[in-house]
Amino acid sequence: MAKALDPELRSSPGLSPANWAIISLIILSIVTGILETEESLVHANGWMFSAAEMVLFCVFFVEYVLRIWSSVENPRHASRWAYARTPASILDLVTLFAIGASLLGPEGFLLRLARLLRLLRLSRLGRFTAAWQTLARALANRGYELGMSVALAVLMVLISSSLLYLIEGALQPEAFGSIPRAMWWSIATLTTVGYGDVVPLTAWGRLVGAVAAIAGVGLIAMPAGIIAGAVSEVIQQRRRDAMPGAIKDDDGER
Amino acid sequence: MAKALDPELRSSPGLSPANWAIISLIILSIVTGILETEESLVHANGWMFSAAEMVLFCVFFVEYVLRIWSSVENPRHASRWAYARTPASILDLVTLFAIGASLLGPEGFLLRLARLLRLLRLSRLGRFTAAWQTLARALANRGYELGMSVALAVLMVLISSSLLYLIEGALQPEAFGSIPRAMWWSIATLTTVGYGDVVPLTAWGRLVGAVAAIAGVGLIAMPAGIIAGAVSEVIQQRRRDAMPGAIKDDDGER
Amino acid sequence: MAKALDPELRSSPGLSPANWAIISLIILSIVTGILETEESLVHANGWMFSAAEMVLFCVFFVEYVLRIWSSVENPRHASRWAYARTPASILDLVTLFAIGASLLGPEGFLLRLARLLRLLRLSRLGRFTAAWQTLARALANRGYELGMSVALAVLMVLISSSLLYLIEGALQPEAFGSIPRAMWWSIATLTTVGYGDVVPLTAWGRLVGAVAAIAGVGLIAMPAGIIAGAVSEVIQQRRRDAMPGAIKDDDGER
Amino acid sequence: MAKALDPELRSSPGLSPANWAIISLIILSIVTGILETEESLVHANGWMFSAAEMVLFCVFFVEYVLRIWSSVENPRHASRWAYARTPASILDLVTLFAIGASLLGPEGFLLRLARLLRLLRLSRLGRFTAAWQTLARALANRGYELGMSVALAVLMVLISSSLLYLIEGALQPEAFGSIPRAMWWSIATLTTVGYGDVVPLTAWGRLVGAVAAIAGVGLIAMPAGIIAGAVSEVIQQRRRDAMPGAIKDDDGER
Repeated sequence: MAKALDPELRSSPGLSPANWAIISLIILSIVTGILETEESLVHANGWMFSAAEMVLFCVFFVEYVLRIWSSVENPRHASRWAYARTPASILDLVTLFAIGASLLGPEGFLLRLARLLRLLRLSRLGRFTAAWQTLARALANRGYELGMSVALAVLMVLISSSLLYLIEGALQPEAFGSIPRAMWWSIATLTTVGYGDVVPLTAWGRLVGAVAAIAGVGLIAMPAGIIAGAVSEVIQQRRRDAMPGAIKDDDGER
Repeated sequence: MAKALDPELRSSPGLSPANWAIISLIILSIVTGILETEESLVHANGWMFSAAEMVLFCVFFVEYVLRIWSSVENPRHASRWAYARTPASILDLVTLFAIGASLLGPEGFLLRLARLLRLLRLSRLGRFTAAWQTLARALANRGYELGMSVALAVLMVLISSSLLYLIEGALQPEAFGSIPRAMWWSIATLTTVGYGDVVPLTAWGRLVGAVAAIAGVGLIAMPAGIIAGAVSEVIQQRRRDAMPGAIKDDDGER
Repeated sequence: MAKALDPELRSSPGLSPANWAIISLIILSIVTGILETEESLVHANGWMFSAAEMVLFCVFFVEYVLRIWSSVENPRHASRWAYARTPASILDLVTLFAIGASLLGPEGFLLRLARLLRLLRLSRLGRFTAAWQTLARALANRGYELGMSVALAVLMVLISSSLLYLIEGALQPEAFGSIPRAMWWSIATLTTVGYGDVVPLTAWGRLVGAVAAIAGVGLIAMPAGIIAGAVSEVIQQRRRDAMPGAIKDDDGER
Repeated sequence: MAKALDPELRSSPGLSPANWAIISLIILSIVTGILETEESLVHANGWMFSAAEMVLFCVFFVEYVLRIWSSVENPRHASRWAYARTPASILDLVTLFAIGASLLGPEGFLLRLARLLRLLRLSRLGRFTAAWQTLARALANRGYELGMSVALAVLMVLISSSLLYLIEGALQPEAFGSIPRAMWWSIATLTTVGYGDVVPLTAWGRLVGAVAAIAGVGLIAMPAGIIAGAVSEVIQQRRRDAMPGAIKDDDGER
């Protein structure tokens, strides 16, 4: 049974059918939790949400008990109590409580938010682990240049928001009355998001805004190029590993 | 005659003059269908649209009959009735009905929409086929990394919309009153579209918004880099194929 | 004198001092023409603009006469009258009239616009010519893939604007009452410009909008990758040419 | 003591603990200066800001005196007076006055802005110097193509804003009443920022707007590709330098 639940004990690569089912249910529970925040949906289909939460609670409760029970089959865990204290197991318990709490009353949002943490655990399971590590390593190798981009970005946010504060601070106190306020406009412009809820109105303010918009195009090109390079490295790495006859120094999990 | 209509029977690469004419008429019928939705245009030039639709209906009717008639010249089709049941032929019939229906009354929009499906068939005809297949294969090779990007994007949409729901849900119930509502803002920000119809108003909401905008720049760099890499692979592939003396294992249709 | 005006007769690479001066004056005349459209500036500094236009007219008149006079020194031009009928010379005359007209009255905008055409001629002069040709050739080599991107973009604009027309056409007739109207929103979304003057308001419309925004990120990655590849080819080409000992098959003008 | 303050005298790479402390304090002083512009924060925590400024002033005063005192240990500076006249030292004095002035009254914003200049000096210190130089050199090598992008961008801004001025100048005089005004919209569109505070309203204006938005996607691809290429060159350069056995022709400061 432990082989069905613990990816580390499984001989063949990929996830076991049991784990695929649990992942599907985790995703279902997240989708349910998200939809439940929309009152118009809950109002119309209240009993469906209640039933779904009830079923999910029972399944996750059984899963939790089974995981603890079978944990000793993995030599890494000294005892069931030792496994129960691992972060992964505590996270399971927390999310179990979260679902239970949402069954009792509609105020359990903060607890329900905890279920989102499960998504992070998902990403550590099975297939994606090796790829994420390759990407993280590729980005770490470029940490120096990413740092340069961040430094340049911070500098440009500071300069553009300071200038807008100086130019339009008196005219639009709500939007540019202080540098932290002006930063909202500044970041929206430099990332080319451009909400438009706050815009410079004077000629000088618009001149600074136009320069910031153009600088933003160059600014986002730096991290974009670095990340694209890191991703392409990950792709080449995977191809090398996938080639027959290649020396594999990985855990073969991918 | 079949040689003029069926690209598979044509010896030389590219489309026959007859098929070029039909493609032009298909595009014209799509443009007509689009412009007809604008009432001010129809009001002013009603008879022109009627005449165009009438002509297009007749041409496509003749084309349909000729295609069925000459289908037996292609050994792939056992009989005319067998050809008439192929998806391509059924699509022709549907679009024919769609144009006919739009002649009878102005309510035929849903049927007229079917004409857009013809555009998809266009892309399967002639020149572009091989290139699309190369691109699809290049993207499929990167499916793993594209999946990582999508997983990361979903995670960031979930986190940022959940946070905005928590922070501004009470202040702006219309915009952030539930997580699905907050996702509209979240996706507009992470893709750097930034409509600005919905924006955070509090300091904490704007902090999350600024982080989401910056994260969005990094997030879109991943798929952009992957797609750009796939496109560049397609370009190199085509160049290799175009080189004299290269071994061609393609259908020579490009 | 022809050597000072005609780049083709100049032995050393680059532009002659006389041509640099004329280019500076052309740029000055464009800037003047642009600023003159802003009435508040003209109102305050009217005489400055009049004086600048007067001087520019005289200089360009003298330049025009000198160019015609010295044209016969270039063996390419059979006679002065033959040179006067070349497109470049006619363009000079048109822009001369344009400046003259703007001296007489403030309504000469359309004529003044002709001065912008001179900018295009600028780009054909001197230094940039070879680089533009290399870029144009690099883009032409990728014309096939650029065509694919355009086809995909047109398809996505059609689909997303048709869907919004169907979903929100009745609710927002001004914005989505016809497919051509909905295209304004559609293009603003797919290019991630996102003005926000027109946005979907219903849940289904926003679902389509979110999908379009995400698709836009992928869509702009294709031409961006192609253009970036073409630009990088231009850079490498220039480096190869700049290397000592490399075989130069260019006109040595760069 | 000079070894602790002057990066040039330090034998090991990186910054000394004393310089790290000073950099932290400079960042703290910048953050303080920024937050002080927000009146609601100053109102609530006035004494904290006063205390922080007081401490920062004292520390920077001591640092300034010590730097002047120990400057003669670096053979590059002939005398303490010679060092005090270097731009770096004058900048220190200016920022010192700026902090002092902000202690006396709340109107010292312009002086406080001078503190931002210190950030620029930061970037010249220690670790980042070599990387910035490599990036600057890589960008300078591509100056020709960057110039082409800028020329193309200027041309497109001119054309699109002139067209909008012609089409919508009479309808929306505030937004498109002159070419300089129309440029605000034009730059926001071509950089895909798209504030949406100013948008074309007529069919022709929107046609130009749609073309500009699409052209913008291609336009920002050129500098983005050039900058991404320059950054990737910097990364490769650093890797080559980091390889054991590689010939190092750098100052070893990185």
